[in-house]
Amino acid sequence: METIHQNVTVGFRYPVYFTEGVFDSANPVLASAVCSVEDGGPHKLLCVLDRGVCERRPGLPRQVEAYCRAHPDLTLVRPPLILPGGEGVKNTPQYVHLVQEAISEFGLCRHSFVVAAGGGGLLDMAGYAAATSHRGVRLIRVPTTVLSQNDSGVGVKNGINAFGKKNFLGVFAPPHAVINDFEFLSTLSDRDWRSGIAEAVKVALIKDAAFFEFLEEHARGLANREPAPMRRLIHRCAELHLNHIGSAGDPFETGSSRPLDFGHWAAHKLEQMTRFRLRHGEAVAIGMALDATYSCLTGLLPEADWRRILALLENAGFALYAPELEGPLSRCDPESLLHGLTEFREHLGGRMTVMLLAGIGRGVEAHYMEDEIIRDSIAELASAAAEASRRAV
Amino acid sequence: METIHQNVTVGFRYPVYFTEGVFDSANPVLASAVCSVEDGGPHKLLCVLDRGVCERRPGLPRQVEAYCRAHPDLTLVRPPLILPGGEGVKNTPQYVHLVQEAISEFGLCRHSFVVAAGGGGLLDMAGYAAATSHRGVRLIRVPTTVLSQNDSGVGVKNGINAFGKKNFLGVFAPPHAVINDFEFLSTLSDRDWRSGIAEAVKVALIKDAAFFEFLEEHARGLANREPAPMRRLIHRCAELHLNHIGSAGDPFETGSSRPLDFGHWAAHKLEQMTRFRLRHGEAVAIGMALDATYSCLTGLLPEADWRRILALLENAGFALYAPELEGPLSRCDPESLLHGLTEFREHLGGRMTVMLLAGIGRGVEAHYMEDEIIRDSIAELASAAAEASRRAV
Repeated sequence: METIHQNVTVGFRYPVYFTEGVFDSANPVLASAVCSVEDGGPHKLLCVLDRGVCERRPGLPRQVEAYCRAHPDLTLVRPPLILPGGEGVKNTPQYVHLVQEAISEFGLCRHSFVVAAGGGGLLDMAGYAAATSHRGVRLIRVPTTVLSQNDSGVGVKNGINAFGKKNFLGVFAPPHAVINDFEFLSTLSDRDWRSGIAEAVKVALIKDAAFFEFLEEHARGLANREPAPMRRLIHRCAELHLNHIGSAGDPFETGSSRPLDFGHWAAHKLEQMTRFRLRHGEAVAIGMALDATYSCLTGLLPEADWRRILALLENAGFALYAPELEGPLSRCDPESLLHGLTEFREHLGGRMTVMLLAGIGRGVEAHYMEDEIIRDSIAELASAAAEASRRAV
Repeated sequence: METIHQNVTVGFRYPVYFTEGVFDSANPVLASAVCSVEDGGPHKLLCVLDRGVCERRPGLPRQVEAYCRAHPDLTLVRPPLILPGGEGVKNTPQYVHLVQEAISEFGLCRHSFVVAAGGGGLLDMAGYAAATSHRGVRLIRVPTTVLSQNDSGVGVKNGINAFGKKNFLGVFAPPHAVINDFEFLSTLSDRDWRSGIAEAVKVALIKDAAFFEFLEEHARGLANREPAPMRRLIHRCAELHLNHIGSAGDPFETGSSRPLDFGHWAAHKLEQMTRFRLRHGEAVAIGMALDATYSCLTGLLPEADWRRILALLENAGFALYAPELEGPLSRCDPESLLHGLTEFREHLGGRMTVMLLAGIGRGVEAHYMEDEIIRDSIAELASAAAEASRRAV
């Protein structure tokens, strides 16, 4: 009997808003994001808030409740669920279960909304819970950190860690809307503020030399928490990220498409090796310094570009070395940084592919890295760090 | 700052093969389904088998191992995982965890394969585990029952039960390929053989009067397990199902699109109320008899068509009544059949929508059902059943 060839095309559209004071009752953005759908209201909302954000903004849960009271089309099914943020919330399945349970208990359906406000960890976890309930309850993300506003929060990935592997459990599921509220940034710690800058340097290095120049020009201002350049950084970085997802032809990476990654194979492994002492952005800064150095040592990247990259990262306030970089030089040893290459390949699937640099704004995919040159790159970063600390003394 | 409007289009293609003896080493279908992908082999395979199928075909696990040895491009990472089938496997999360754990332990990546062979329950569960690991390991389904070959196994849904709700946890994730092996059908019990006929009657009633006539003509042959009409039934039913998914414009049902459902609101509830004493297809037959009767009592469906529908279902061997149909008449009482309407709406999301019939092959969507007429329909089925049993005596 004849084989049937099935074709399925699925289209998703979602807006990424930029605003201030998303939960001020007079702010129309959230209500209009909910009410944009064809089916009439009232719409059920379950709100999930990042405990860390609530500690810095104790009035937030009540503000969310007041917002929903002021907008009769929004029915908040229960007071906001307040759950831990950071990477920790992704390490136990219990939080996903809590969100799914609330979705069930309050009878949310596939046309209802989960509104999650917090950093990337909380958004990844709540998004995974929403995406797997009723095969996908609508998700509105309100990212509260630089990193989530310019990168993870605007994309199509959700997930949690499992079996000791970052993001092992997860799905591709576009959000219904993303609302970037700049007001949240003022409550960030210096480390969290800075951390998000790393992803902007990343997309600039791979895709956009003009954006890199903007970042060079404003590096110290960004490090000193000037809001205006940070807003431009977030908007441009989000835009480049969204362009990549929307135009690369394989947004769910079923084939050989790769995410907009640079320095990430080492970064994921360093986060794990430092037991998350390093924030994601801090680890990415080191990973980028490492792969920029590798690109330079193999003759791919001009030395002048390499110096500009390291200078920008240092001016933005990043350390470019961690002692965990050193250790056994073996791809098979889980204790080795090099095992990160194995894990990275396994997570993305298919052939080993890493991004290297042929210039600023010119990422190139490579399918091979030489262990000895990685070791030389680490040594280079170690001596640069030693010199920097001598200068500082 | 300007809102960014993101558009994401994702295309999926997958073949649905019809074959016999899929795990005979000489059968090229599985190997070519795996090797159709661009990236070179060898390809890692994790095989998950339905314990019920293995009990009837004790040589199956060894046959799978021999198949992979005979095809050097396929690397079976461990002996087949043998897990329970039926609805039971969907009722505890432990089985999903077992499959995910094996995916992690043996280093499967997003380009590796989970090959699942079994009934709809096992396929739903294994598919959910694969879809959530690394955001989607490739899944090849080998459905072994009539029901899974003509309906659930060829579609885009995966999931398990949770919080007492059928398919509460799940995602839309198209398989990499589906291989319908008719040889498995000979090992089915009479109940399982018959059960799958119900879904074919369903699509015929909604979409295809000529297919309904084919089923009428072969009803007794199908009930008597004649293979030839059953193969035609499965191919046509799978084709209609795939057409609906591929052409309705909303394959992941994010808007108001509905699956190809008829009689399912009551069927889901009856399965639950009978604690799965009724198989899915048996419950669907009753649900269809109920909604056909409702369609007739409201004047939508001509009486002659109604009689043909009930006669076909009876000739195919279905009982059209279960005592659980009766009970409290309240949509708010979880013990009432009518609560099934509430649960159905909640699961699909948005406005209440059920399919009714305006004729054979002519499904029409309705957004309202009257409680009293549902009660009258149940009474009609009860008296028809009483009469049928008098005739039988």
